[in-house]
Amino acid sequence: MGSVSSRLLGVLDAFTGAQRRLTLTEISRRTGLPMGTAHRLVGELVAWGALERDDRGRYQIGLRLWEVAALAPRGPGLREIALPFLEDLYEATHQHVQLAVLDGLDVVYVERISARGAVGVRSRVGGRWPAHTTGVGLVLLAHAPPPIQEDYLGTPLAGFTELTITDPAALRRVLAEVRRTGYAVSDRQVTMDAVSVAAPVRNVGGAVVAALSVVVGTDGPPPSALVPAVVTAARGISRSMFRYPEVP
Amino acid sequence: MGSVSSRLLGVLDAFTGAQRRLTLTEISRRTGLPMGTAHRLVGELVAWGALERDDRGRYQIGLRLWEVAALAPRGPGLREIALPFLEDLYEATHQHVQLAVLDGLDVVYVERISARGAVGVRSRVGGRWPAHTTGVGLVLLAHAPPPIQEDYLGTPLAGFTELTITDPAALRRVLAEVRRTGYAVSDRQVTMDAVSVAAPVRNVGGAVVAALSVVVGTDGPPPSALVPAVVTAARGISRSMFRYPEVP
Repeated sequence: MGSVSSRLLGVLDAFTGAQRRLTLTEISRRTGLPMGTAHRLVGELVAWGALERDDRGRYQIGLRLWEVAALAPRGPGLREIALPFLEDLYEATHQHVQLAVLDGLDVVYVERISARGAVGVRSRVGGRWPAHTTGVGLVLLAHAPPPIQEDYLGTPLAGFTELTITDPAALRRVLAEVRRTGYAVSDRQVTMDAVSVAAPVRNVGGAVVAALSVVVGTDGPPPSALVPAVVTAARGISRSMFRYPEVP
Repeated sequence: MGSVSSRLLGVLDAFTGAQRRLTLTEISRRTGLPMGTAHRLVGELVAWGALERDDRGRYQIGLRLWEVAALAPRGPGLREIALPFLEDLYEATHQHVQLAVLDGLDVVYVERISARGAVGVRSRVGGRWPAHTTGVGLVLLAHAPPPIQEDYLGTPLAGFTELTITDPAALRRVLAEVRRTGYAVSDRQVTMDAVSVAAPVRNVGGAVVAALSVVVGTDGPPPSALVPAVVTAARGISRSMFRYPEVP
């Protein structure tokens, strides 16, 4: 689409986790827009507050956009309901606690609580990650509608470590096991020092709409010891969804 | 402005904390756009992912907008740095812990960690509140550039309880006291059952860029007992800003 709307929204796409601040020249280069057009669109985004300028004159995503985005039911809405249970799980484990949803074929992290001394993780809140490599992703894939599962199994499966499951038949078996047991363990699939344990969060209708996980180092507690806590917290969130039929 | 860009962004303004889901008719009414125009703009916002439809066909803010907004340095960027310290303060107090910035003449809440049994608060993450009625707001106002302070003191001061400071001269004295002591106490200014204690967060250059607070019930610990913990955590965040010169 070459409409004004799509070009305006395309300017926002130029910003990434690695490049949170851009000059007008960089925006023009990344979007493929002529400088004059980029200048005009950026001006309109600044006027509304979707972009703001830092003290060196570069552009960054503005606080106003974040305020509006905080109204998204599937992100912050879900987060509001889940947060007390994430707190409980964090206090019980003192490990990374994560909440994620499935968007297309990716996992999107909606919230993470991190201890300062916990194992390093590569995801960030608002970031995407290939579903098959993470505990939350395995849970969400296992309960996704069959056509989405088949789409996923039909695409090449990215590998990050020697243990990452990249064989579709093996992944299919893992997903069946996740449905059977009610939780998922992702063992050194992204880095060789981290394991995650995840469980499903269900909405009022019983559909799995999110997944909750704890990420521990391989030198930490055994994953099996974390399963009851993760499942308990995930069920607590699911139960609270009854009180908020609006979400998600 | 009547440009396509401003009308497109105006559609996003139709969504509020009280109305997170809207029909096309409601969007048309709230924005003043003809149904045909609203339909076309909403279609472009859905195509990009800024809006999505719920299972009843109503529109809501989409996950994609929230992903982009998660790149905002003044919101989530600041939050990432501050979160471990907010966790520490929460574990030490088990009360509401809040992080806020000043935007125009309002306080915007960037993060809140809440205990389930803690006193009720009326703010929400991503929400705005009049600065003079909150601990974080008093800290941010006290350290705002003088023209912003004068603007604020020149506008009518909203009252919520019989104790809310609505006299500009009294507020001016409170702000001077906040600068002198290094913290603020907001005593039953929003509701008669809540008190907050707040301290400033400074960037690398020493400018106050955020404020941290604990909110307790009037039947909870005395505010004076919380001051050292809040000041300590706020200084911890300020110290960490040196490691992230990019924010805010």
